[in-house]
Amino acid sequence: MSIRRLAVIGVGLIGGSLARALRHAGQVGEIIGCGRSRENLERALELGVIDSFTHQIGEAVSGADMIFLAIPLGAMESAFSEMRGRIGDDALITDGGSAKASVVEACRMGLGRLPPGFVPGHPIAGTEKSGVDASFMELYRGRRVILTPTDATSPEALESVASMWRSCGAEVTCMSVAHHDEVLAATSHLPHMLAFGLVDTLASMDENDEIFRYAAGGFRDFTRIASSNPVMWRDICVANKAALGEMMERYIKDMEVLAETIRRGDGGRLLEIFSRAKAARDRFIDTASDPGSTE
Amino acid sequence: MSIRRLAVIGVGLIGGSLARALRHAGQVGEIIGCGRSRENLERALELGVIDSFTHQIGEAVSGADMIFLAIPLGAMESAFSEMRGRIGDDALITDGGSAKASVVEACRMGLGRLPPGFVPGHPIAGTEKSGVDASFMELYRGRRVILTPTDATSPEALESVASMWRSCGAEVTCMSVAHHDEVLAATSHLPHMLAFGLVDTLASMDENDEIFRYAAGGFRDFTRIASSNPVMWRDICVANKAALGEMMERYIKDMEVLAETIRRGDGGRLLEIFSRAKAARDRFIDTASDPGSTE
Repeated sequence: MSIRRLAVIGVGLIGGSLARALRHAGQVGEIIGCGRSRENLERALELGVIDSFTHQIGEAVSGADMIFLAIPLGAMESAFSEMRGRIGDDALITDGGSAKASVVEACRMGLGRLPPGFVPGHPIAGTEKSGVDASFMELYRGRRVILTPTDATSPEALESVASMWRSCGAEVTCMSVAHHDEVLAATSHLPHMLAFGLVDTLASMDENDEIFRYAAGGFRDFTRIASSNPVMWRDICVANKAALGEMMERYIKDMEVLAETIRRGDGGRLLEIFSRAKAARDRFIDTASDPGSTE
Repeated sequence: MSIRRLAVIGVGLIGGSLARALRHAGQVGEIIGCGRSRENLERALELGVIDSFTHQIGEAVSGADMIFLAIPLGAMESAFSEMRGRIGDDALITDGGSAKASVVEACRMGLGRLPPGFVPGHPIAGTEKSGVDASFMELYRGRRVILTPTDATSPEALESVASMWRSCGAEVTCMSVAHHDEVLAATSHLPHMLAFGLVDTLASMDENDEIFRYAAGGFRDFTRIASSNPVMWRDICVANKAALGEMMERYIKDMEVLAETIRRGDGGRLLEIFSRAKAARDRFIDTASDPGSTE
C-alpha cells in the first residue's frame, strides 16, 4: 500500500507520529495537516511532519486518499460534517479515538452515512505529552492497533488501513465496536477513573497538605495517570458512558464487599481476595509479552 | 548514640537493611538475628548482616540494648509475649509495622505494659522483594521514618531511636499513633485496596483472558502493587481496619458520584472533577521533593 495524499486532521502526538512513521516507511507522498492552532501547524511544517496545512477540514480532505482523524472525541461529529461532500469515493477514513461507538455515530450524523472506506480504529499508544513536538516516528512500533469495522466497511478498506498501521510497526487486531468499548472500559477507562477518584478523595480531606506529603513512591506512579488531560477524559467518559458506567458499577460492588470484609476484620476472606488478585495479576501480566498502552 | 547489642527480630528486607546501615555507620557493636527460617538466618550470617542467630525471641532480646521488630503485624503480640521478663530495664524497643495502633495494643497485651523504652515506628521504605538477600544498606537513605511515641514513651528513648534512624540517612518525623494510621490509610493502604480490587474485578469477568491481554502499559504500573504480599496486606487491613474502613467508605461514596455523573453523561461536571484531581495531583506531587514509599 502506498498513500498518495494523506490528510491528518489534528497534528498532535497521535497524528504527528503517524505522519512521521509513514514518511519514514516511504508509504506516503504528500501530507496535509489540519488543525486550529496556527502555531502548532507551523511547527509541524518546520519539523517536516507535514508538507502544507489548512484550517479548513473540507479543504484538507479534498483529493486525499487517506484521512486520519486524530482529534478529541467531542470534535468528531463536526469534523465529519465539514467533510460532507468533500471526500472522494475511494477515500479511506480512519481515526484514533479511544471509544468507537461514539465515532461511528459521529460519522453517521456528520457525514449522513457510513461509507465503505470508513474504518474506525484505535492505536493503543501514547505518552503524557501532547502537541506535534511530542510526536515521534517510533510511537507505534510494537504497539497494538485495534480496528473496528462497521457493517458498511469494505474488506479492501479494512485491509488497506491495517496495512498502513503495519507499515508503522504496529500489530493490528480487529474486533467489533461494542467489544472494543467494553474491553477498553475495563482495561483503560476504569483504571483512570480509579486514579482520578483517589486523588479527588484525598484532596477533599481536611489535612490534604499532609496527606499528599506522605503520598510518594508507589502512590506517585499510581496517580500519575490522574494528571492526564481532563478534556480528553471528559470526552472519553461521555463517549463510552454505557460500557464504562457498567464497569464502574461492578467495581464499586466489589469494593463494597472488600470494605465490609475489612470492617469486620475477616482475615481469612481478605487473604483469599488478595491471593486471588495477586495470582491473576502475576499470571496474566507477567507472562504477557504485549505492547504497552497509556490510555 | 551507639548500640552495644542490637536484636533484629525478623531478618528480611526491613530488618536486614537496618542492620547493614547501622553497621556501615559504625553505630552498632554486636547484631543478633532472630527468625523462623534457618536458611534465611544462615544466609544473613554468611552475608555479614548479623553476627549470630537464634530462633528464640526471649534469647535474642536478653542483654540487647536495642530491639527492632521487623515481623508481620499478625506476629507482633506473640513476639511481645516471648519478650516478657527477658528485656532489660534500659532496653529500647522499636518496630517497622505499617499500622501503629495494633502494635501498641500487641505490646500492651504481650508484654503486659507499655515500657518507657518502647518507641513504635514506621520506616516508609521498601521494595517488592523480601528476605535478607533483598536487604541493602541504602534502603533508608533519604526516606521518611515516622515515630509514634505512646503516652509512656520517655523523651530519651524517642531521641535515641530517632538518632538511630538518622544515622541510617532517614528523615525522622513524629506524630500520634491515631494520626499515623489515618495518614497511612489514605496514602498507602487505600491505594493498595484499589489495585487489589481492580485486578479482582477484571479477573472475575468472563473474557478475562482477553481483558488482561489489553491490560498493559499504564495499567501494568497501576496493578503492580496488587502483586504485593497477600499475607502482609491481610495483616495491615486487619490491624488498621478502623481508619482504612473509613477511608474506603469515603472513596466508594466519591466513586458512586463519579459513576452517576458518567451514566448521565454530564460533561461539565466530569470536566470539573478531572480538572480538580489533576490540579491537586500536580500541585502536591510534582512540587514535593519527598522520598518515596512502596507500602
